[in-house]
Amino acid sequence: MNHFYSAASPTNLNELVQTAIRLKKNPTQHMDLGKGKLMVLLFFNASLRTKLSTQKAAMNLGMQVISMDMKDSWAWEFEDGVTMRFDKAEHVKEAANVICRYADIIAIRSFPSLTDKETDYSDQVINNFMKYSTKPVVNLESAIRHPLQSFADLLTIREKVQKPNPKIVLSWAPHPKALPQAVSNSFLEWMHRAGHNVTVTHPQGYELHPEFMTGHTVEYEQEKAFAEADVVYVKNWSPLSQYGKVANQSEEWMITKAKLDKTNHAKLMHCLPVRRNVVIADDAMDSEHSAIYDLAENRLHTAQAVIYSILKGEL
Amino acid sequence: MNHFYSAASPTNLNELVQTAIRLKKNPTQHMDLGKGKLMVLLFFNASLRTKLSTQKAAMNLGMQVISMDMKDSWAWEFEDGVTMRFDKAEHVKEAANVICRYADIIAIRSFPSLTDKETDYSDQVINNFMKYSTKPVVNLESAIRHPLQSFADLLTIREKVQKPNPKIVLSWAPHPKALPQAVSNSFLEWMHRAGHNVTVTHPQGYELHPEFMTGHTVEYEQEKAFAEADVVYVKNWSPLSQYGKVANQSEEWMITKAKLDKTNHAKLMHCLPVRRNVVIADDAMDSEHSAIYDLAENRLHTAQAVIYSILKGEL
Amino acid sequence: MNHFYSAASPTNLNELVQTAIRLKKNPTQHMDLGKGKLMVLLFFNASLRTKLSTQKAAMNLGMQVISMDMKDSWAWEFEDGVTMRFDKAEHVKEAANVICRYADIIAIRSFPSLTDKETDYSDQVINNFMKYSTKPVVNLESAIRHPLQSFADLLTIREKVQKPNPKIVLSWAPHPKALPQAVSNSFLEWMHRAGHNVTVTHPQGYELHPEFMTGHTVEYEQEKAFAEADVVYVKNWSPLSQYGKVANQSEEWMITKAKLDKTNHAKLMHCLPVRRNVVIADDAMDSEHSAIYDLAENRLHTAQAVIYSILKGEL
Repeated sequence: MNHFYSAASPTNLNELVQTAIRLKKNPTQHMDLGKGKLMVLLFFNASLRTKLSTQKAAMNLGMQVISMDMKDSWAWEFEDGVTMRFDKAEHVKEAANVICRYADIIAIRSFPSLTDKETDYSDQVINNFMKYSTKPVVNLESAIRHPLQSFADLLTIREKVQKPNPKIVLSWAPHPKALPQAVSNSFLEWMHRAGHNVTVTHPQGYELHPEFMTGHTVEYEQEKAFAEADVVYVKNWSPLSQYGKVANQSEEWMITKAKLDKTNHAKLMHCLPVRRNVVIADDAMDSEHSAIYDLAENRLHTAQAVIYSILKGEL
Repeated sequence: MNHFYSAASPTNLNELVQTAIRLKKNPTQHMDLGKGKLMVLLFFNASLRTKLSTQKAAMNLGMQVISMDMKDSWAWEFEDGVTMRFDKAEHVKEAANVICRYADIIAIRSFPSLTDKETDYSDQVINNFMKYSTKPVVNLESAIRHPLQSFADLLTIREKVQKPNPKIVLSWAPHPKALPQAVSNSFLEWMHRAGHNVTVTHPQGYELHPEFMTGHTVEYEQEKAFAEADVVYVKNWSPLSQYGKVANQSEEWMITKAKLDKTNHAKLMHCLPVRRNVVIADDAMDSEHSAIYDLAENRLHTAQAVIYSILKGEL
Repeated sequence: MNHFYSAASPTNLNELVQTAIRLKKNPTQHMDLGKGKLMVLLFFNASLRTKLSTQKAAMNLGMQVISMDMKDSWAWEFEDGVTMRFDKAEHVKEAANVICRYADIIAIRSFPSLTDKETDYSDQVINNFMKYSTKPVVNLESAIRHPLQSFADLLTIREKVQKPNPKIVLSWAPHPKALPQAVSNSFLEWMHRAGHNVTVTHPQGYELHPEFMTGHTVEYEQEKAFAEADVVYVKNWSPLSQYGKVANQSEEWMITKAKLDKTNHAKLMHCLPVRRNVVIADDAMDSEHSAIYDLAENRLHTAQAVIYSILKGEL
C-alpha cells in the first residue's frame, strides 16, 4: 500500500503522468471503478482548488465522497504517551484507525504552524496519520509538501514546453503575510525526480531547506535567472532563517510582463491564490505568458490519476 | 450560454414554468441527464431551503454536487487593478476562471452589506463572477435579487389561484433586524414579467427601488391593499432611504388571521425563515390561508427546472 | 412511520441486529434501495464517527446525502407562541415541515446545554423536530440519548461475547470537562431492552437518572464491579446532582490494563473520542482487551441497518 505523500511516492512517475494525460481526454471513462468506495477529505485549513478538484476527481471515478472541515470535529493530539488533560479531545491514533474503518482513501490538508520549525518540518499531522492509517493517505498539502500541486505543475510543463531540457525558474515574490514553503519545496522535489534542474531565485536570507535543493541552483539576481527561461514558476515563501516572519516585501521582486518578455517566451505558473499587483502584476497575470488557469485545471486530472492508481493498486 | 440571474434570464418563462410542473410530477425521470457533470454551490451566507432544495434538484438530475461555505475558503477581491496587500487573498477573476474548469454549473449566494447601497445595487459579487465565468451561473440570492425564490413564488401562485387576473399584494411587515430588499425586488420583477400587477403596501419611507416597481402600484394603507386580495405575499425589508437601518417596527403591520380573513380567501406566502408573532402571527401562519410550506416545496421543483434547462441548453 | 429515537424505537430489536449482521457481510448489496431518496443530516455539534459512518451508511444504500453544519444556517426557536424578536430566526415548526418536503429521512445531532437540566431532559430539539416532522427522524445523539451508538454497542457485545449471561459493567471514568449523560443513558436503556442487567460503577454523587437505571444495579467500588466482568464499557459523564459541573477528577477511576487483567478477559469498549491517560490509560487502550475500533466500525453497519429498515418501512 502506497501513500501519496511526496515526489518519492509514485512507483513509476512517467506512468502516472501518462495516466493523467489519458484520463484528461475522457475523465468519466472509469465511473464504475470506485463504486461503493469512500474517499474522505479532512481539511484543517482553507481550500478552494484542492477541495473542488480532488472531490471532482474522486466523483469522476464513481467514488462516494465526504469532505470534512476539521474545525467542526474534535481537536487531535499527535504526541504519544501524553496525559490528554487539555484542549485535545482525540488522539490521532484513534482518529486514523476509525476513519480507516469507513474510508478506502483518506486525504488530509494541514498547514504548518509557522511558529515551530522543527515540528513543522517533521510534518507531524500527516506523518502521524499515515503511521496509524491502514488505508492509503493522500497529501492535500502538508506543513512542508504539496505533491498534488507539484504533479499538476509537472503535467503542465510537459504539455506547454516541448523541448528536452527546458530552463525552469522558481522565483520568490513578495507577499504581505508569512506563507509556508510547502509549494516550493514540493515543486523542487518533483522537478528533481522528473530530471529537471531548477534555477531558484530569491533575496538573500530566503534560502530553502537544503533537503529540497538537491540538483538545483540558486541565482540571487532575478534578472539573470529569467534570461532564456522557458518556465517561470512564481511563489512566495517565508524565510527559514526568520521563521514565520515577513523579512522582505520589496516590490522589485514582483513579477511583471516586462520581466517575462525578456525570457524565452516563458510560461508563467502559480499555484493560486495569488495577490495581484503584489506577487504578480495584472499585466503579467493577463498576458499570453500565463499558464495559470490551465495549471489549475490540471489539478483535476492529476488528482484523478493519483486516485485511479490507488484504486488499481498501482501507485 | 444563459446565466440564471434575474427575471430576464429565462428565454421562455412559460416554458420554464411548464418544465417545473412536469418535473414535479416525477422528479427522478431524468437521473442520467447530469451524469459526470458537477454543480458547485458557493455560500457566502447562511442558508437552509436554498442549500437543500438546490442540491437535491441537481442530485435528482444525476449531477455531482459540491457545496462550499466560503468562510472556509479564501476571501475574494472584486475590484480590478487593486494592489492586493490587505485582507483579500484571491481575485474573483481567478476564482471564477478556475471553478469553471471543474464545474459545469456554478451557483452563488452573496447577501448585501447593507452598509453601502451603491455597491450593493451594483450586485458586485455575482456580476463580477458572471463576468469572468465561462459556465452558467445560478443566483442563489444576490445583494438585490433572489430569482429562484421568485420562480417558486410564481409557480405557487399559478397552482393556488385559478383565475386570469388575481389581485396580488406584497405587504411589508416588521422585523427586529435590517433585512435585504432582494426577495421583494425579485418578486416584483418576476410578477411583472409574468404579466401581474402587484399592489405593494408598506409604511411611508419604505419605498422600493423604482427599477423594480415598473407596472406595480403602492397603497400605503395595508387594510385597503388587502381588500379583495387573492395572494398576500409578506416580506420585511429595510428602507432604502435610511439604508441598513430599522426605521419602523410597528406591530400594526404584522400579518394576522383577522387581516387575511378580510381578503378574498387570500393565500399567504412568505419565503422563510419567518419570525412568528413579529412578521406573521401564529394564527395566520397556522391558518388555512397559508401556502408557505407548499411554496417552500416548490423551491425544489423550480430549481430543478432551472438546472434541467441549463443542462439542456434551453434556459 | 417510526422515528429512530431510543431503545424503544425498533419494533423488533433482534431482527434489527440480524439485519446489521447481514449488511456487514456485504455492505453494498442494496445500492438501489435508496435511489432518488435524500437523507439530510443536521449537526448542531461536532462529530467525526457519527458524521462519517451515517453518511457512508446512507451512500451504501444508494441515497443522496446532504450533511449540514447548523451554525451555517438560521438559529431555531423551539418554544411555541413566542414573539420571535431576539436571536432566533426560524421556528422549528417551519424548519421541520420544510426539510421534510425535500428529504426522505432526517437525522439530527444536538447536545445538551448542560446548564438547564429540565430542558435537557425534555430533549427539546429532537422532540420538537419529531413533533413537526412528516418523515422518519434519526437521533444522531440528542441531549440525553445516543441510540446509534448503543445499537453498535449491542452488536459488538453480541459478536465478542459468546455466552448467554455475560457480566456487563458500565464504569465511570474521570474527564477534565463536563460531559453529557447521553451515551451512558442510552447504553443502559438498550442493554435493558436486550435483556442484560448492567453493573454500573461510579463515585458517590454520579448516580444516573432513575429512568435509565431500570433493571441495573450500582456498585460504588470499581474493583468489585470489575470482578468476573466480560465487558467493561467506559464513559465519563457529569453529575446530575451538580448539573454541568466537574465534581470528581480522581485518577483512581482511570481504566488501566491492570484493572482489566483482573476481569474475565473483559472486552474494553468506549464510544470515542477518548482522552488517553485520563479516561483510559495507554496500556489498556492498546491491550488485547480493546474492542474499541471494532465497535467504531460497527457504527457503520448498525446505522446502515437502521436506514435500511426505515427505507423498507420495517423499523
